[in-house]
Amino acid sequence: MTHSNQAPGPLDGFVVLDLSRVLSGPYCTMMLCDLGARVIKVEQPGSGDEARHFLPMAADGTSAYFAAINRGKQSIALDLKAKDDRLVFERLLARADVLVENYRPGVLDRLGYGWEKLRTQHPGLVLASISGFGQTGPYRDRAAYDVVVQAMSGMMSITGHPDGDPTRAGSSIGDLGAALFACNGIQAALLRRSRTGLGGHVDVSMFEAQIAMLEGAIPQLWCTGQSPKPLGARHPGAAPFDAFRAADGHLVIAAGSDHLFARLAEVLQLPDLPKNPLFAQRALRVVNHAALKVAIEGALASASVDHWLVRLEEAGVPAGPLNDIATMMADPQVSSRGILPEIESGGGQRAPVTPILMSGHAYPDRLGRVPVLDQDREAILQFAQGS
Amino acid sequence: MTHSNQAPGPLDGFVVLDLSRVLSGPYCTMMLCDLGARVIKVEQPGSGDEARHFLPMAADGTSAYFAAINRGKQSIALDLKAKDDRLVFERLLARADVLVENYRPGVLDRLGYGWEKLRTQHPGLVLASISGFGQTGPYRDRAAYDVVVQAMSGMMSITGHPDGDPTRAGSSIGDLGAALFACNGIQAALLRRSRTGLGGHVDVSMFEAQIAMLEGAIPQLWCTGQSPKPLGARHPGAAPFDAFRAADGHLVIAAGSDHLFARLAEVLQLPDLPKNPLFAQRALRVVNHAALKVAIEGALASASVDHWLVRLEEAGVPAGPLNDIATMMADPQVSSRGILPEIESGGGQRAPVTPILMSGHAYPDRLGRVPVLDQDREAILQFAQGS
Repeated sequence: MTHSNQAPGPLDGFVVLDLSRVLSGPYCTMMLCDLGARVIKVEQPGSGDEARHFLPMAADGTSAYFAAINRGKQSIALDLKAKDDRLVFERLLARADVLVENYRPGVLDRLGYGWEKLRTQHPGLVLASISGFGQTGPYRDRAAYDVVVQAMSGMMSITGHPDGDPTRAGSSIGDLGAALFACNGIQAALLRRSRTGLGGHVDVSMFEAQIAMLEGAIPQLWCTGQSPKPLGARHPGAAPFDAFRAADGHLVIAAGSDHLFARLAEVLQLPDLPKNPLFAQRALRVVNHAALKVAIEGALASASVDHWLVRLEEAGVPAGPLNDIATMMADPQVSSRGILPEIESGGGQRAPVTPILMSGHAYPDRLGRVPVLDQDREAILQFAQGS
Repeated sequence: MTHSNQAPGPLDGFVVLDLSRVLSGPYCTMMLCDLGARVIKVEQPGSGDEARHFLPMAADGTSAYFAAINRGKQSIALDLKAKDDRLVFERLLARADVLVENYRPGVLDRLGYGWEKLRTQHPGLVLASISGFGQTGPYRDRAAYDVVVQAMSGMMSITGHPDGDPTRAGSSIGDLGAALFACNGIQAALLRRSRTGLGGHVDVSMFEAQIAMLEGAIPQLWCTGQSPKPLGARHPGAAPFDAFRAADGHLVIAAGSDHLFARLAEVLQLPDLPKNPLFAQRALRVVNHAALKVAIEGALASASVDHWLVRLEEAGVPAGPLNDIATMMADPQVSSRGILPEIESGGGQRAPVTPILMSGHAYPDRLGRVPVLDQDREAILQFAQGS
């Protein structure tokens, strides 16, 4: 539906029932929707998904936050504790390929739709459960939100500045990481189903998703015996790879290899820098990063960020400006690729489409409309009846 | 092979050829490997994947960084500019389901393996290309590394402290985000292939992957006309949702809803807090977050982090410690679920397995061995011959 102006998406024909709320589950089903699946959002009558009430709110009173993540989905309000609504839900289950939920472990069972029951009644169904800590283990009953898993995973211990106050990555990567792994798990289970005919239960923990995204920090502890510390904007294993101050602001430069470092030294008119024994090799530059930064910023101070970015691009040295959100949105690469289409009937609101460009598909010109709670009841009831 | 002690993984039988280097591509193929695919790493003779030389290094001189991301894969060294090696690569292409690469756009074409040629000769092949800015657009020829896309996407503009120095999320989420989207794109293309018989070209840009992970920042600009600023550990749309100081250190608390906030106030023995007109509603608490933090830290100052975490857990308020990497690795939830198995022949090194638990599969007891460059030449040559 999001793709009405082009060939069907790769997941065309798949039906996803979505009981999830707020962010991790809805982001996962947003991806499935963008890839072409039909996503039916089953919401609590009355209030619906809590994120419908989340800041920031657009001028017309709808949550722009909710809009960005739920555009293109359909909505029906069902009370899963009421008999008639349960019958509708069960008819939908019989027609669905995937069910996504992010209740606390045990809630789906108490509603009568636990995995052991679902697998018996709907052997082809893929159930994806996203939770704070997973469906098993001592913390299974604990709720978690983004900042909790960023803190407990160690992600916050490597983010921020040395001896600075605690710092969270500025977006909810605790939720988004889990959403991205869950979407991968769902698709892997669907590929397995095409071989075996059987669905499966995908169990993704936000805590574990953050641990899996720590990159070099676990190897660093293994090699040094020390937990790594936050490094500001610097990379622990490459230098120069940091933000640097020029005459009128900061830019970032990533020139860790000897080859790129030599080019950077030319641009900065510091031809002797690569011969300096402190900086002659990649590993030495990491050790002597502070002295290196002084040398680089000494040269950068003579001209503006824009000046240096032009020179660095000419020389093929990876570098860039520290854009704010408005500057990023005005960037020519953003408009050229069309990564931020307008939302249909969204009054001009633009939001990121899932960034997976596939041959035979451009990014859509428009994202689907944002469903009002229960807006698609009739169409969904008809679908539940088999039409 | 990672799964030798259990049922085949969901992607059992799929063959992935991997030309990628360093992080974004190798992380993507690590996921495919963990899900059961056979991943054949095709490396430059002599030096191989650059990450083989990346810090941190283990005591035996191998890169622990490389090990964590490439365990379980097979390695063959092929010179794609030499005739005989090209023949081997082309035989492998004929048997592969997926080819992953993260060269700069145009390099694969110049090697004679551009998409237009591949699609003709291998119509079922899925090619995934991960690059800094994508295969099209004005920046297509620019290389990018993690810090460049974190800066240009605006991610760094919302990470760190107000008026503080530039701050990068502490792990390379610019690479990992792209890897996670690419893996989703590959699987979506394989699901489409099971319907159409045709592969496809998946084009993922690190820059766009970061833009897609900005969460509420773009809606916030849309609603307020202002680009959001960094907030330390605080959430822009929920409060209390931050790090707070207790008597002996910090903890995080996420109690944005009225319900959880009321429970928090009880634990802190501040029963009047939810009645205070400054804090009576979610949106008011966000506006008055600074006064709220003063009140909460005033109460927390009387006892230790451990004390409060026990009380908060009893009350069901999401909260947690700020673990460093060593503390996280000793956490009982980590050992209970087995998210960090040992690497085979890794001398005890542990690394995260892809955090997708699927019914019928526990996480593996051990991750596959780390391939020495060209270690699997004989087995891969036999496979290329069709055996």
